[in-house]
Amino acid sequence: MLIALEMIGLVAFAGSGALAAVQARLDLFGVVVVGLTTALGGGIIRDVLLGLTPPTTLRTWPYLAVSAATALLVFFFHPQVARLRRAVLLADALGLGVFATAGTSTALHAGAPVYTACLIGMTTGIGGGAVRDLLLREIPLVLRKEIYAVAALAGCVLVGVGHLLRLPAGLVITAAAVTTVAIRVLALWRRWNAPVAKGTPPSSFS
Amino acid sequence: MLIALEMIGLVAFAGSGALAAVQARLDLFGVVVVGLTTALGGGIIRDVLLGLTPPTTLRTWPYLAVSAATALLVFFFHPQVARLRRAVLLADALGLGVFATAGTSTALHAGAPVYTACLIGMTTGIGGGAVRDLLLREIPLVLRKEIYAVAALAGCVLVGVGHLLRLPAGLVITAAAVTTVAIRVLALWRRWNAPVAKGTPPSSFS
Amino acid sequence: MLIALEMIGLVAFAGSGALAAVQARLDLFGVVVVGLTTALGGGIIRDVLLGLTPPTTLRTWPYLAVSAATALLVFFFHPQVARLRRAVLLADALGLGVFATAGTSTALHAGAPVYTACLIGMTTGIGGGAVRDLLLREIPLVLRKEIYAVAALAGCVLVGVGHLLRLPAGLVITAAAVTTVAIRVLALWRRWNAPVAKGTPPSSFS
Repeated sequence: MLIALEMIGLVAFAGSGALAAVQARLDLFGVVVVGLTTALGGGIIRDVLLGLTPPTTLRTWPYLAVSAATALLVFFFHPQVARLRRAVLLADALGLGVFATAGTSTALHAGAPVYTACLIGMTTGIGGGAVRDLLLREIPLVLRKEIYAVAALAGCVLVGVGHLLRLPAGLVITAAAVTTVAIRVLALWRRWNAPVAKGTPPSSFS
Repeated sequence: MLIALEMIGLVAFAGSGALAAVQARLDLFGVVVVGLTTALGGGIIRDVLLGLTPPTTLRTWPYLAVSAATALLVFFFHPQVARLRRAVLLADALGLGVFATAGTSTALHAGAPVYTACLIGMTTGIGGGAVRDLLLREIPLVLRKEIYAVAALAGCVLVGVGHLLRLPAGLVITAAAVTTVAIRVLALWRRWNAPVAKGTPPSSFS
Repeated sequence: MLIALEMIGLVAFAGSGALAAVQARLDLFGVVVVGLTTALGGGIIRDVLLGLTPPTTLRTWPYLAVSAATALLVFFFHPQVARLRRAVLLADALGLGVFATAGTSTALHAGAPVYTACLIGMTTGIGGGAVRDLLLREIPLVLRKEIYAVAALAGCVLVGVGHLLRLPAGLVITAAAVTTVAIRVLALWRRWNAPVAKGTPPSSFS
């Protein structure tokens, strides 16, 4: 079941990357590269931080095939995909939940302390999207928009707490992923945003 | 001979990075840093992904010296270099071919599966230029322009196939590098571009 | 004492990242993430290049706590912080000196050759700020402004020379850090800039 969820997450992330690349008028190859990078980027960063090389995502061909196929589909059918706005956002939330919590679990297995594992898990969840935005010359969405990384962090912390309490891992990861998805979906639905600093921003000083 | 080709590639990549930095009005130091990053970046990414630390490119002083000297020359003689447009593009194609195929071979020797090695080799070839464009706040050229990464990938796949067929490595790498260079030069000459998605791009949805 | 200096550096870097994020109108969470990334980014890059995983900065909770608390303070009190312009720049120079020289020392202990250690030390000093600027879609300041990376490099080279001469490490690092800070402060005070290339920059050729 975790694998099925991971595949949903890969599809969602590859699709969001490919759609953003189509909007930036990239060519076929650029769309596939950005799709792959968005889908696999979080896992690559996680494995590099944990010293698991070469990264699992680059060693698992179904991950590559599913991500590339999704990007190709988006390239040819992007108007239809863009119309599925809600489905894409929901799938993206699913992917965020699965990647963040599974990333935390991977880091714990690799021997990282709990708070380190939470940070690495959060990075796994949000990393792909951040790389996508950097490649397309945007300030990463995760830094600007509705509750996103906090939703990921909440799931990661639950996995960490479950690990400390020695609860069964499968159960904990599932509950944590559901929590992340729920927070993210509620934030989208209710348009929750984190506060912005008050006052005129100071002029640049550096 | 491989070393001679690698040096040509380093010079070409360092030169392209330095020239772009001069155009962005960076100062002397910025020009050298961008030149070094462009020349060495692909190899650094390759070694980090393979867990070969510290990265070979940072441990090989001739690489550093050649790249830095190239960037300095470009800083002082950039009008003459810019006039050598064709020579620079040809050298860049050579560098792409050498780095991508040698990167694939390095990854295979480090024990990566064939498709992983191809991806890492392609990343080695295109990574330096992508970092250059990110530093200078451009959407990476490799995502936007004539057949570039596909040329690299073609060479990487040839190296992978040669590895599976147990052909002699030196021969395979040479043939693969020639293939990459040929595709890239033809793409430049004939202005081959990958297709762009049809239809109005959907408005941003995220 | 090194730890006290490192804390000052973390506070300065976290503060500069958070302030830049407030100016870019990021929300509370974005401000904390950019602050953390700026403070910890150089050390993370250093450890990934040296194969020390998971990175020390992610495994040392006081680093995380101090950096996050600084970013939060800046979020709420940014007008006051922006008024402390000189103090912030001085603290940033301190951080640069400490991180660059301690980074060189870490790389030497990990067995890197001297020139490799110098490059990795310089990257440790300037890496966090470069990541901050990339996230906020700026050409990294270090590539554009007064003597900055050269100041870091000077300290790194001193650490490397001291290592070759087998001088006592604590003494060498202190002298090297002071050198870096002095060069940086002088450059700010005297507005030293590295030269820019002469002549009209050539039009883009790629």
